[in-house]
Amino acid sequence: MSTSLLRPLVLTMGDPAGIGPEIVVKALRERPDLLGKVVVAGDVPTLRRALSLGAHEPRADALMLAQIGTLASLPGVPVGCMAVVQACALVQPVAWGDIGAQAGRAAAECIEFAARAALRREARAVVTAPIHKESLAAAGVSHPGHTELLQALAAEHAGVPVTAMPVRMMLSSPGLSTVLVSIHMSLRQALDAVTTARVLQTIETTHTHFQRLGHPRARIAVAGLNPHSGEGGLFGREEIEVIAPAVAGARKAGIDASGPHAPDTVFMRARQGDFDVVVAMYHDQGLIPVKLLGLEHGVNTTLGLPFVRTSPDHGTAFDLAGTGRASAASLLAAIDAAMRATG
Amino acid sequence: MSTSLLRPLVLTMGDPAGIGPEIVVKALRERPDLLGKVVVAGDVPTLRRALSLGAHEPRADALMLAQIGTLASLPGVPVGCMAVVQACALVQPVAWGDIGAQAGRAAAECIEFAARAALRREARAVVTAPIHKESLAAAGVSHPGHTELLQALAAEHAGVPVTAMPVRMMLSSPGLSTVLVSIHMSLRQALDAVTTARVLQTIETTHTHFQRLGHPRARIAVAGLNPHSGEGGLFGREEIEVIAPAVAGARKAGIDASGPHAPDTVFMRARQGDFDVVVAMYHDQGLIPVKLLGLEHGVNTTLGLPFVRTSPDHGTAFDLAGTGRASAASLLAAIDAAMRATG
Repeated sequence: MSTSLLRPLVLTMGDPAGIGPEIVVKALRERPDLLGKVVVAGDVPTLRRALSLGAHEPRADALMLAQIGTLASLPGVPVGCMAVVQACALVQPVAWGDIGAQAGRAAAECIEFAARAALRREARAVVTAPIHKESLAAAGVSHPGHTELLQALAAEHAGVPVTAMPVRMMLSSPGLSTVLVSIHMSLRQALDAVTTARVLQTIETTHTHFQRLGHPRARIAVAGLNPHSGEGGLFGREEIEVIAPAVAGARKAGIDASGPHAPDTVFMRARQGDFDVVVAMYHDQGLIPVKLLGLEHGVNTTLGLPFVRTSPDHGTAFDLAGTGRASAASLLAAIDAAMRATG
Repeated sequence: MSTSLLRPLVLTMGDPAGIGPEIVVKALRERPDLLGKVVVAGDVPTLRRALSLGAHEPRADALMLAQIGTLASLPGVPVGCMAVVQACALVQPVAWGDIGAQAGRAAAECIEFAARAALRREARAVVTAPIHKESLAAAGVSHPGHTELLQALAAEHAGVPVTAMPVRMMLSSPGLSTVLVSIHMSLRQALDAVTTARVLQTIETTHTHFQRLGHPRARIAVAGLNPHSGEGGLFGREEIEVIAPAVAGARKAGIDASGPHAPDTVFMRARQGDFDVVVAMYHDQGLIPVKLLGLEHGVNTTLGLPFVRTSPDHGTAFDLAGTGRASAASLLAAIDAAMRATG
């Protein structure tokens, strides 16, 4: 048994005004087998409020909250208890659906706690519940999302600039996984980000991830950028001048990469089993097909970090927060993916 | 009964080297109810060769070919016969899978025959089998595909410049329809084509199409261009400066348009029933989700022409041509869509 199995998986509560805390509770209620393996990084009063949401449900009293000071205390937590570390300084639970600096700061503090624990190898993996970009910005956090924040923390820990810690977002639905060359930028900027170096780096990062999962010959399809992959240069030359050289470089390095493939059929082909994963040239090229196949079980994985990090493929759903109706399916899929990747 | 029902639907054979002729034959073999309503515009020897492909199949002898001189002769064709007009000057059948000027010219001549018949109101609608862009180009046809060729013919017939005959491509799979702001150009050029005037024109053309189908309040979702629809201007400003004004203009004209919606979830929402159709900002934004949902039953409809034109959502499949294995499902879906639109 790998020692990683003895370390807890850290699960952040996400934005306290969103559905994060309640899907964390719901996930652990639905899957008591996870209780001895997971520590929640969050705010105790906020999580108690989330626990009370399901108080009318059958089995609701089966889950209690046990506050612990450090991850190492998990083995001492009584059976049937959700272990929680108070990882943020929240004065009082924020109102459901409220956007603000207080919520953003709490969410960021929990992420920092989880990332530092993983970087110190005290945590087996990190799974993050959804945060809200506007609250994060209101709290003065300069990173637009989890991916960039985790990248910065990992680079700081390694003592290198963020450019030396290239990360990529992978999104998976049952039957389809895609890794994105770029994420949170305008489509116009994303076009400029399609360089041979960046595409090759994305292919390599993807390959390394699958290698770590025990899958050394993953079939990586590389999508084109233009309609019909440029139709031989007729509708754009990026395929010829930028993407094909990256695919050739990857193949020279022994990676089973192919393409560039026509963007409008490559995802369909991957889903049919022709490829294990598709490298997408920009955010929506990859996310449109993955989300169409089912937001419910979508998992977001950050590739390139020195630890495993996954998250559900949905947002804070402020309109649902506090109703107890939000589904924990995607969060559970993210926890299971992180467990498998470190198992 | 509308008089349109008395006029035949004209079905082009497509590129003679591709699967077009054989799926035309297969479609009419599978659906003998169509024989009295459809005239094939093609090359008689090429279609006879396609007929011979299925000669070993049950019911194969049930279909024979009857050459007619004009569409008006359809009622005189014997029961069980596929009516064919020799619409092109092909010296002899081209080899399966061969790219060349001869095949491209024959394909273009059949399209011209069909379009002119529809423009003269002698044809009820036009359904086109797939053509090959390289053969078309080899034949000196300056239009990259059906849509542009049909637009040019319609503009010529109306005596107006092509800019006065705006057309749009709509692609439909079961459960999802999308209309594209632009089609055959590089993604970089497609970004420049996202103007308020062009987006508004696309919404209006979509609205008019649904109106003609007896659906005057179609819920038209307009997709954004950037990730998360620009996240309030953070990742691009086209949503604020270009797309939102187009949506507002359409609403002012009484059209049930909404958006811009986040591109990565709008197709999922349309499929769930929130919208009747999605206006997509560029080729792959719309085609990735539609093709993922099933190439098998995909239908391409050209909006904005003075007649109804549909086609299957696949290509010439040169690798399959001559094997008799190509499916006629998408072509039959296109024929049925054209029949419904003119019924």
